[in-house]
Amino acid sequence: MILILQNNATDAQIDHVLERVEELGLKHHLSRGTFRTIVGIIGDEEKLHAASLDAIPGVAEVIPVLQPYKLASLEAHPDPSVIDVSGVKIGGGYLGMIAGPCSVEDRDRMMRIAESVRESGANLFRGGAYKPRTSPYAFQGLAVEGLKILRDVGKAFGMPVVTEVTDPRLVETVSEYADMLQVGARNMQNFALLTEVGKSKRPVLLKRGMSATISDLLMCAEYILSQGNANVVLCERGVKGFDSVTRNLFDVAAVPVIHGLSHLPVIVDPSHATGKPDLIPPCAMAGLAAGADGVHVEVHDCPEQAKSDGPQALLPEQYRELASQMKGLAELLGKTISPLPEPLT
Amino acid sequence: MILILQNNATDAQIDHVLERVEELGLKHHLSRGTFRTIVGIIGDEEKLHAASLDAIPGVAEVIPVLQPYKLASLEAHPDPSVIDVSGVKIGGGYLGMIAGPCSVEDRDRMMRIAESVRESGANLFRGGAYKPRTSPYAFQGLAVEGLKILRDVGKAFGMPVVTEVTDPRLVETVSEYADMLQVGARNMQNFALLTEVGKSKRPVLLKRGMSATISDLLMCAEYILSQGNANVVLCERGVKGFDSVTRNLFDVAAVPVIHGLSHLPVIVDPSHATGKPDLIPPCAMAGLAAGADGVHVEVHDCPEQAKSDGPQALLPEQYRELASQMKGLAELLGKTISPLPEPLT
Amino acid sequence: MILILQNNATDAQIDHVLERVEELGLKHHLSRGTFRTIVGIIGDEEKLHAASLDAIPGVAEVIPVLQPYKLASLEAHPDPSVIDVSGVKIGGGYLGMIAGPCSVEDRDRMMRIAESVRESGANLFRGGAYKPRTSPYAFQGLAVEGLKILRDVGKAFGMPVVTEVTDPRLVETVSEYADMLQVGARNMQNFALLTEVGKSKRPVLLKRGMSATISDLLMCAEYILSQGNANVVLCERGVKGFDSVTRNLFDVAAVPVIHGLSHLPVIVDPSHATGKPDLIPPCAMAGLAAGADGVHVEVHDCPEQAKSDGPQALLPEQYRELASQMKGLAELLGKTISPLPEPLT
Amino acid sequence: MILILQNNATDAQIDHVLERVEELGLKHHLSRGTFRTIVGIIGDEEKLHAASLDAIPGVAEVIPVLQPYKLASLEAHPDPSVIDVSGVKIGGGYLGMIAGPCSVEDRDRMMRIAESVRESGANLFRGGAYKPRTSPYAFQGLAVEGLKILRDVGKAFGMPVVTEVTDPRLVETVSEYADMLQVGARNMQNFALLTEVGKSKRPVLLKRGMSATISDLLMCAEYILSQGNANVVLCERGVKGFDSVTRNLFDVAAVPVIHGLSHLPVIVDPSHATGKPDLIPPCAMAGLAAGADGVHVEVHDCPEQAKSDGPQALLPEQYRELASQMKGLAELLGKTISPLPEPLT
Repeated sequence: MILILQNNATDAQIDHVLERVEELGLKHHLSRGTFRTIVGIIGDEEKLHAASLDAIPGVAEVIPVLQPYKLASLEAHPDPSVIDVSGVKIGGGYLGMIAGPCSVEDRDRMMRIAESVRESGANLFRGGAYKPRTSPYAFQGLAVEGLKILRDVGKAFGMPVVTEVTDPRLVETVSEYADMLQVGARNMQNFALLTEVGKSKRPVLLKRGMSATISDLLMCAEYILSQGNANVVLCERGVKGFDSVTRNLFDVAAVPVIHGLSHLPVIVDPSHATGKPDLIPPCAMAGLAAGADGVHVEVHDCPEQAKSDGPQALLPEQYRELASQMKGLAELLGKTISPLPEPLT
Repeated sequence: MILILQNNATDAQIDHVLERVEELGLKHHLSRGTFRTIVGIIGDEEKLHAASLDAIPGVAEVIPVLQPYKLASLEAHPDPSVIDVSGVKIGGGYLGMIAGPCSVEDRDRMMRIAESVRESGANLFRGGAYKPRTSPYAFQGLAVEGLKILRDVGKAFGMPVVTEVTDPRLVETVSEYADMLQVGARNMQNFALLTEVGKSKRPVLLKRGMSATISDLLMCAEYILSQGNANVVLCERGVKGFDSVTRNLFDVAAVPVIHGLSHLPVIVDPSHATGKPDLIPPCAMAGLAAGADGVHVEVHDCPEQAKSDGPQALLPEQYRELASQMKGLAELLGKTISPLPEPLT
Repeated sequence: MILILQNNATDAQIDHVLERVEELGLKHHLSRGTFRTIVGIIGDEEKLHAASLDAIPGVAEVIPVLQPYKLASLEAHPDPSVIDVSGVKIGGGYLGMIAGPCSVEDRDRMMRIAESVRESGANLFRGGAYKPRTSPYAFQGLAVEGLKILRDVGKAFGMPVVTEVTDPRLVETVSEYADMLQVGARNMQNFALLTEVGKSKRPVLLKRGMSATISDLLMCAEYILSQGNANVVLCERGVKGFDSVTRNLFDVAAVPVIHGLSHLPVIVDPSHATGKPDLIPPCAMAGLAAGADGVHVEVHDCPEQAKSDGPQALLPEQYRELASQMKGLAELLGKTISPLPEPLT
Repeated sequence: MILILQNNATDAQIDHVLERVEELGLKHHLSRGTFRTIVGIIGDEEKLHAASLDAIPGVAEVIPVLQPYKLASLEAHPDPSVIDVSGVKIGGGYLGMIAGPCSVEDRDRMMRIAESVRESGANLFRGGAYKPRTSPYAFQGLAVEGLKILRDVGKAFGMPVVTEVTDPRLVETVSEYADMLQVGARNMQNFALLTEVGKSKRPVLLKRGMSATISDLLMCAEYILSQGNANVVLCERGVKGFDSVTRNLFDVAAVPVIHGLSHLPVIVDPSHATGKPDLIPPCAMAGLAAGADGVHVEVHDCPEQAKSDGPQALLPEQYRELASQMKGLAELLGKTISPLPEPLT
């Protein structure tokens, strides 16, 4: 950590700063420049994160040298992690292709959609049973009934299933039915929820919040990892932007940025990132080309009747075409679309 | 609600749109312009929010005409609400002056700070017992022990207390000790938590999320109101900006914008909005001048030893000076700093 | 255009609105809903853009139905434009591969870099002779001397050259030496400059401003087109974001958004978008995968000695590797990297 | 300046870094920490800004210690500057109250508006003769004819006038008619224009760009100052935000931030910052309360007939009421609304 002192810092202030550093059991390194005095601090940066050093009179700025996350960092785990979701691998060259409707709706429709996306090449089926809706008056999901449908559909087609959990009290129940727990963008910094999914054994799909920096996202992954659950897949799904022409601003560079900082796999969600069907295929392709470990796409066979987010879903035939393009690109990039698990006999 | 059709929409598509509107029990009004066909829809817009009309082929854009919130709107309640927090009024000309440290720390320090801010003119004492920290390794708060200290300090000085609740499972416990429940910016869209505080009888201080529009914020207030709790105070505390010179971007215009849309009181929090002590007083004054119904300021008597957020706290003597300036401004504006409640005899 | 009236608009106000519309020679269409009255306006929307209809008492909102640009729109020109830069085609399936250093520096270095990027597959050479630097004390470019070097280098290797023009007084001079004029992000809304390049015969590379919406960008293209210069190529180079981990936020979705609104080609510039060499290749690939009509990359053989923007340049050997990957991707996508023009004999 | 090296930097890389620093004639200070090696550089930071040190292999990050601007900094000029605009002072306790229509329109209307705002307390009259419009088809201003009207109106009422200059070729002409030259937000980084107004003798009103950091803004002021023109007034007029409920996001904290970094006066423009008449008065008051050295408000006597930006103008009677409130606040804050200059006899 580096402290930059104010240019009018007094000697007494400087001495006080050095004393505080020593109290924390750390070494310091004073450097008086022409205009500024700088204090380098050597030792366990952890101790410093806890201290309010920037509140000491005379300190102008505190510059951390290390990242605040450890378990999520590439330094802790230099090789890319491969996360196993009930037999489907994500990361390290394996692609997770997640597809399905926004909400779990009636059983027949779910069966039809699952059959179609499986045939197109998807290896994970998604659907929300608990929906975090911005309006209290909107459809809130089928709850446990939806979880049951989801599990049955997954079994029928041999696809592991992923669904969102929105409340720490529901983690146990959702874990019984789902192969992977999704933490949504609005809950990215719901630390009580992160702690509970961290205690669960299920892999977690952690979506980036709409105004979260990459460092914020990795700190939230750290919450989960620090509870003992190492199976975290990150998801870029668009950040808040100033142009309303798209629903969010798809930050495709987040993919290589994360790969440069962390061993955790990262997938992209062009459905939420753009909110418009005609932008989903080009952004899905862009995500893969940037190195994403998978793609999450909403698919519905009659978007105008969808209980939620219909406008951002692809039709099954549109998904089939996109999946075929993604297969070509995966091959070019030397990646493998993870095969479905062998059914137990 | 208005539907703008694509300029190449076919007659069959237009007929299908009109059928869907009729199915929803609503009337339509077709207008063929030179370049675009437009469908006005007349009737209960509620039904339309649920429908995925923008997913119908041929529809280019859906433009809502009404706000999606009702209970929070000025149309539902044209006069400003006055929220009573155990005797301290906020709104309708009464100012809530909230002050105290970021975290509840040891009892003696809390007593000292409370005594000082009370003397300066604060009428609500704050302190966090459960801290939503971005790092899992940072100080997480004193929990119930902190709640007890907070309640005792409040009683000792006759000040109602406000503290954050971060988990739906804790709402009952926190409600036992605190006069007002704070929902933090990172939990603004934690709908499970909003539902629980909505069921509680305590007034709620709802902070705006870092990338929340005003409409998003009012929808979250609507969650609380729709559960039967009408005592909601909103708080502007800075949104995500691109200039790192301040911690967040203080959106002072949010105050008059909210007053033009909702009857709920809105206060400002220049501590979190700016993150820098020398910016707190000018931004507190700006908030009041823009019409805020109160000001929330963090105060600590030794910021460099604060367990959290030391750098954004004022010293007690700095708060005294600011409070005196705010009194002058309140008078000029014809507002009343809400007096402390009479102690029970 | 649609006017939404305030819910308490009086009959006199409504009558006044209708009169104003009639004064403009347009027809109106009144629709009284349960809660709101709406006025549809039929006729030449142009006339309405000029009028301050939203300032009329009783008008709550004005919603344009048509895009404000015409010549740049897909409606005016449904097929993609193919821009010819001295023999190199951009758009309609042809890719422009622009490479070269940030600033034109000494002749030998320029020759070396040009030779290398040409061999790797670039078909346009770039370099700045007039540099819009944020500091008045920084290197401002070699001016005419730089233009001469650039032209000579281009001739030596048979590559058309592109360079930035920053001042309306310089358009004529720069046009003498360069095959394509670049308007930089900071000058995107420098309307005097847009007007001058619009009068020139040279193709223009128009970069998106850091806080420009797509509609803003297309309006600036419209300025150029409306002066008679139809040869405009747009460039996405990152917008302002809140995460300082990258220099800007690469908005890859801008590519398909623009293709859905305009016939003009759009290329991506991952060098400025990310500011970091290791992010340039994945973002270049992402741009192509999203449908970009070309890629602009800064290349320097000794970035630490570059006169400007060294850190965001690729080394010639890094560019060679990227170019080879881009060739593979172009093939997969059915695009053609535009061949160099045949030298005159 | 501080260089943080990559954690796997080799000894050869470190030696190379030190050599480069020595080549620049500067001293270094090596500090090997547990995880990172850091190089402090002592001497003229100027030389370093020019060098691409972050492009040297092994360097992870370059952290400047000094601000890149000098003449604009508080270190160069510790007391607040007072700018004299033909007798009206701005800064150092004196408030500039700028009012007038967006565009200069017909002479009679200008006379009426000027008379009214002068009576209300405005001390500078504004109006645009050259309008930087986002559409090439919109009203572009009356040009020299507008300048003449503006000058005549100013003379008639003894008010200095301010008007925008948009093109370096027009600086001389505009300087003949106007007392103060405005550089608009879209031209903030039009360095050719900044250089020309820097060479002029007229005071300059420099508006902050929509995505400009405070440091960017001060660097643009530095361009003007470095040409010998010390009379620069800055203006906060809203930055790009994600909530379309206001036209821009009014960054009121910019006022105290600038006062903490620079001696230059800073005024606020709530008209452009919010774009809505009912938000102008609260935001004007907020700006003053935050310490602004003046307020810029658009005023028009018939906004619905305004040639541009009608919706964001106050009516003369609305301005009168706001001006009276601002007078009260100025008094409370101990500021003086600068009196109009004595007419020459």
